[in-house]
Amino acid sequence: MSQSSETTSVQATRARDWLLSFQDSLCAQLEAIDGPVPGFREDAWQRADGGGGRSRIIEEGGVIEKGGLNFSDVHGKQLPPSASANRPEIAGAPFRAMGVSLVMHPRNPYVPTSHMNVRYFEAQPEDAPAVWWFGGGFDLTPFYGFEEDAIHWHRQAKAACDPYGKDLYADTKAWCDRYFHIKHRDEARGIGGLFFDDFTGESFDHAFGFMQSVATHYAKAYIPIIERRKDVDYGERERDFQAYRRGRYVEFNLIYDRGTIFGLQSGGRTESILMSLPSRVSWRYDWHPKPGTEEAKLYTDFLPIRDWI
Amino acid sequence: MSQSSETTSVQATRARDWLLSFQDSLCAQLEAIDGPVPGFREDAWQRADGGGGRSRIIEEGGVIEKGGLNFSDVHGKQLPPSASANRPEIAGAPFRAMGVSLVMHPRNPYVPTSHMNVRYFEAQPEDAPAVWWFGGGFDLTPFYGFEEDAIHWHRQAKAACDPYGKDLYADTKAWCDRYFHIKHRDEARGIGGLFFDDFTGESFDHAFGFMQSVATHYAKAYIPIIERRKDVDYGERERDFQAYRRGRYVEFNLIYDRGTIFGLQSGGRTESILMSLPSRVSWRYDWHPKPGTEEAKLYTDFLPIRDWI
Repeated sequence: MSQSSETTSVQATRARDWLLSFQDSLCAQLEAIDGPVPGFREDAWQRADGGGGRSRIIEEGGVIEKGGLNFSDVHGKQLPPSASANRPEIAGAPFRAMGVSLVMHPRNPYVPTSHMNVRYFEAQPEDAPAVWWFGGGFDLTPFYGFEEDAIHWHRQAKAACDPYGKDLYADTKAWCDRYFHIKHRDEARGIGGLFFDDFTGESFDHAFGFMQSVATHYAKAYIPIIERRKDVDYGERERDFQAYRRGRYVEFNLIYDRGTIFGLQSGGRTESILMSLPSRVSWRYDWHPKPGTEEAKLYTDFLPIRDWI
Repeated sequence: MSQSSETTSVQATRARDWLLSFQDSLCAQLEAIDGPVPGFREDAWQRADGGGGRSRIIEEGGVIEKGGLNFSDVHGKQLPPSASANRPEIAGAPFRAMGVSLVMHPRNPYVPTSHMNVRYFEAQPEDAPAVWWFGGGFDLTPFYGFEEDAIHWHRQAKAACDPYGKDLYADTKAWCDRYFHIKHRDEARGIGGLFFDDFTGESFDHAFGFMQSVATHYAKAYIPIIERRKDVDYGERERDFQAYRRGRYVEFNLIYDRGTIFGLQSGGRTESILMSLPSRVSWRYDWHPKPGTEEAKLYTDFLPIRDWI
């Protein structure tokens, strides 16, 4: 995880230090609820073209069937096309991209899958001023919906945003709903949360503060839901539905997710990028839940976009 | 499955009639080996923007855990971008695309997964001559490799090609190896076979004949392999490896496969396009088989590109 001096700014160093300690702290919080054994195992890696990261992985944990919590800090001489589609002025510029990203796939189908990502980006075009921004968010993907969980999740999302701008929650909630839309199914990935990108706010400190707030509210949003649902009884029926719905998660990540596409295009580390994919997934042909079942309620009551607060 | 007169040519009618009867005949051959129960079920569908198809699906069959054999014939007023990236002269032109496409995911991990597709395409640009071509191929994805199966598969591929051109097998075999390469893993999807596209040959009849030859050789290539391996004993170890390797199949189809991307972009029928995806798939973090095992032999002896004849 060496730094290249040409792409190191004071801002980047501050962001990096905070993200590394945030990864440690979130790891400890998740281990405390998952049970100490087996815990996360760490896999540090270097990227041939510049930078590296440390992946933390949990498989067959007490609560988490498969999960990853990845820190990465990569730089390069030429920004790949997927990263500059909307910003032609930085096409091909030297860049640095860092972040913490997490996906948790719990075993119990009553505990939702969750995703969180926070990131910092800098680019230095040859003939234009340097640019930087923050991005991030979190979103929840239940298999069996509970209104109180959805309300709690979105209240924490709003609490993360409110100190940083009065429209931030509404804007980033709507962005999340747009982003996590599975177009070929015309279906939401889950009940949403927050999503933001290209965020510079009023100043670096303001934008950095917002990113930190989103990051630290993720655990406040997710851990109480794990606690509430992790001991609910379930059987093969629920596991089958979970495996089927996990297929949607795979479809979204491989077809639409910008982080995944950027990562694979920029020669990122495949195993760290694809650690978001679950174990035990199943596709069935044209399957639909029977009307009136708990499985059908996910489609009728939770996936349609709602105001949860 | 109505035809629109504006996109109906004599050639297209001949191709359509042949493809429909080919689907019936291949279905019957596969049912004969799978056992009569449950057999394929048919799902006929219309496409809102023009055309339709008939999907035949098998789930929990005697040999096939999940498989699909789809006929589709779609047309539209505007070719989607993924179809004309290399042919700017037909961008946005009215088009007609038809084909039969198949993926079989057997339950027994000693029986390889296989894929076959044959297709006919026409476009009528406003200010340029009409264009047409054939495409297709077949490829094999073993979990546990057997040299005699790989040789048999490629001999049938060569037999399909030889009457239509002396370099056809070498060229389409190499194209298949390039096409079914999983870039982010730097790994082949399987042991290859044939792949061709934009094929006009010496005449319509010559090109059509080649497509038919590829289509009919698929069963000659695959069915003897099913017969040889379908009763081999297996346990959880083999099923786990199969589930893990099926993840590669999903990655390829959702990230790289042109038919999948064209289908989803052109408003194709999602369930028919994604019927290529298997049941029972599992991702594990950075997993590798132990050196010297049968699982490792797949990587060392079968996935590296080889001349099998």
